[in-house]
Amino acid sequence: MTQNWQHFFNPPWSPVMEKAGGLVFLDQTRLPFEEVWLPLRDMATAAQAIRAMQVRGAPLIGITAAFGLALQMDVDASDASLTASIAELAETRPTAVNLRWALNRMNSILAPLPVSERAAAAWTEARAIAAEDIQTGAAIAKHGYELVKTLHAQKGGTAPLRILTHCNAGWLGTMAWGTALAVMYGAQHFGLPIHVYVDETRPRFQGALTAWELGRAGISHQVITDNAGGHLMQEGLVDVAIVGADRVARNGDAANKIGTYLKALAAFDNNIPFYVALPATTFDFALASGVRAIPIEERAAAEVLAISGRTAAGEMATVQPYPANTLVSNPGFDVTPARLISGLITERGICAASEAGIQGMFADLM
Amino acid sequence: MTQNWQHFFNPPWSPVMEKAGGLVFLDQTRLPFEEVWLPLRDMATAAQAIRAMQVRGAPLIGITAAFGLALQMDVDASDASLTASIAELAETRPTAVNLRWALNRMNSILAPLPVSERAAAAWTEARAIAAEDIQTGAAIAKHGYELVKTLHAQKGGTAPLRILTHCNAGWLGTMAWGTALAVMYGAQHFGLPIHVYVDETRPRFQGALTAWELGRAGISHQVITDNAGGHLMQEGLVDVAIVGADRVARNGDAANKIGTYLKALAAFDNNIPFYVALPATTFDFALASGVRAIPIEERAAAEVLAISGRTAAGEMATVQPYPANTLVSNPGFDVTPARLISGLITERGICAASEAGIQGMFADLM
Repeated sequence: MTQNWQHFFNPPWSPVMEKAGGLVFLDQTRLPFEEVWLPLRDMATAAQAIRAMQVRGAPLIGITAAFGLALQMDVDASDASLTASIAELAETRPTAVNLRWALNRMNSILAPLPVSERAAAAWTEARAIAAEDIQTGAAIAKHGYELVKTLHAQKGGTAPLRILTHCNAGWLGTMAWGTALAVMYGAQHFGLPIHVYVDETRPRFQGALTAWELGRAGISHQVITDNAGGHLMQEGLVDVAIVGADRVARNGDAANKIGTYLKALAAFDNNIPFYVALPATTFDFALASGVRAIPIEERAAAEVLAISGRTAAGEMATVQPYPANTLVSNPGFDVTPARLISGLITERGICAASEAGIQGMFADLM
Repeated sequence: MTQNWQHFFNPPWSPVMEKAGGLVFLDQTRLPFEEVWLPLRDMATAAQAIRAMQVRGAPLIGITAAFGLALQMDVDASDASLTASIAELAETRPTAVNLRWALNRMNSILAPLPVSERAAAAWTEARAIAAEDIQTGAAIAKHGYELVKTLHAQKGGTAPLRILTHCNAGWLGTMAWGTALAVMYGAQHFGLPIHVYVDETRPRFQGALTAWELGRAGISHQVITDNAGGHLMQEGLVDVAIVGADRVARNGDAANKIGTYLKALAAFDNNIPFYVALPATTFDFALASGVRAIPIEERAAAEVLAISGRTAAGEMATVQPYPANTLVSNPGFDVTPARLISGLITERGICAASEAGIQGMFADLM
């Protein structure tokens, strides 16, 4: 570990930030074309930003909800307001467990307090959750780096390590560094050569966010369709797959963005390691297993049918490649069975995707 | 088999047709929005239509090449012209073997003939290839129908049989009926209730073509992203997967549109039958096995980066959802190992995806 490692504790950016004028958030629906920061003035804005995926990523939606609750406590810190606000925020999205974790943590602090003390305590706690998330990202980067260093050495230690990732598990989805992408930032930080295959991640093209992040960081990458990863693995072009998670059950089953399961199957079929990077807050210790148990969000058909981007003339436009009145099914997540996962990269280290593995590292939280 | 079965031998449409004024083809790059028929006047047009995927689908590109060669024989039937024309047409696309099969068949007829007889013979042979393809599609429909009837009965015989398909293996890719979709047209013809999950099939959205075909035929369907099929299978929502093929090796390994392999893995993991429908002309008997042996076309980055469709105002537009200068890898096909394939639905019947299975049905061609 070099002294430079401290860099990881002073991140240059967060997608939600406190500025002099108040909280702001980066509108991820405008990326990768425009960096638009919007004020986060009240709970309704926070709830809508989560629902509309202007903020997204399991850790970040928990943090945004915590700040949303703090904003609401400034307005009305009554029991009724606290209960109703938590209920409203909890319902914004169903799959990521970090949202409920953050709200439970806020509630356990706020509920016992006198109404007059709740606003200040809410801000303190929301800021603490945000600050801890930065440390978490850095720790995932560190443990992940040790892993990819080993894999790189096993591959001969010269050619770039080729990493496939799905969706966006970068700093955009956290307060800093991200989860899966934290590993890549760690590799870059210590000079380990990598090349990243970025799944485009239909329907919402979060691969464009990952390409934007990696491009900003100067990390070598190529976008591929969600269909391509299996072929690249068959051809021996992928050394490891690393993805994030939205909810991981006690047994290691991992819910993540729709399509993750298919890549895990292909990695397993081609004897390629498949890792899930996550903070402890993404575990749902109450859930014995995840397949057919973790609630899967069904999202709007318009996400599949209508595609936005920039025209050759530089203007934003939305096009529909389908016949009029096409019906759609649009599940937002799938669950990768633990048997397909080589390990879980967490802020405490890497453990097996099994109840024993998780218990060995997180018994105090279970 | 009812008398109505004869309907299958008199298809209402083909994507390449002889009209009074000459050959025309349906420009599939304008679908699903516009039905634009273009004249197929010379070999160069045929070659370009294949390269640009204005005509597509393994059987259809073979037929289009055969007609292209006939057009060229009208102009110049010399040995030099014959050799050069076959070479040019054969190079338009590398993966589908039907292209080379059709050209070899044409060449074996034409090469021994005097130059003066080649044009007439070329037209006769191209028309024969096209006519045989119609019979082939109808026979695949018939054998496939028997299969899905059995599967439907096994599922209780009441609720619609839920079929997942990838890409477009419909009448658009053949002279009539298609291959995978022929099975669905067969089911519809005999009143078997089905519901089709249509993979959108990035990068080129051939799922929009399949949705267009199924919509025209009044067959119940939903479009899903390429990421979604694994989850639907985990949830028990898919009864069988049926896809087409571009080249099948002696051992049953099947090259098909990129992403097919991922669906085969998911079907296998969830104990769901996975069938490949193909005409005998899609076999490459010279190839012992397909994985890492069948040549895989690498296509242009623009296919991934630039997406065309209709705006809300009803105009066509092309948008790019990615950051400027994003690099891309865009393999067009992948190979599904025979071990993941439940069977091959052919015009002669259904056989195992194995050398023994194929030999049992096609020994005379091997």
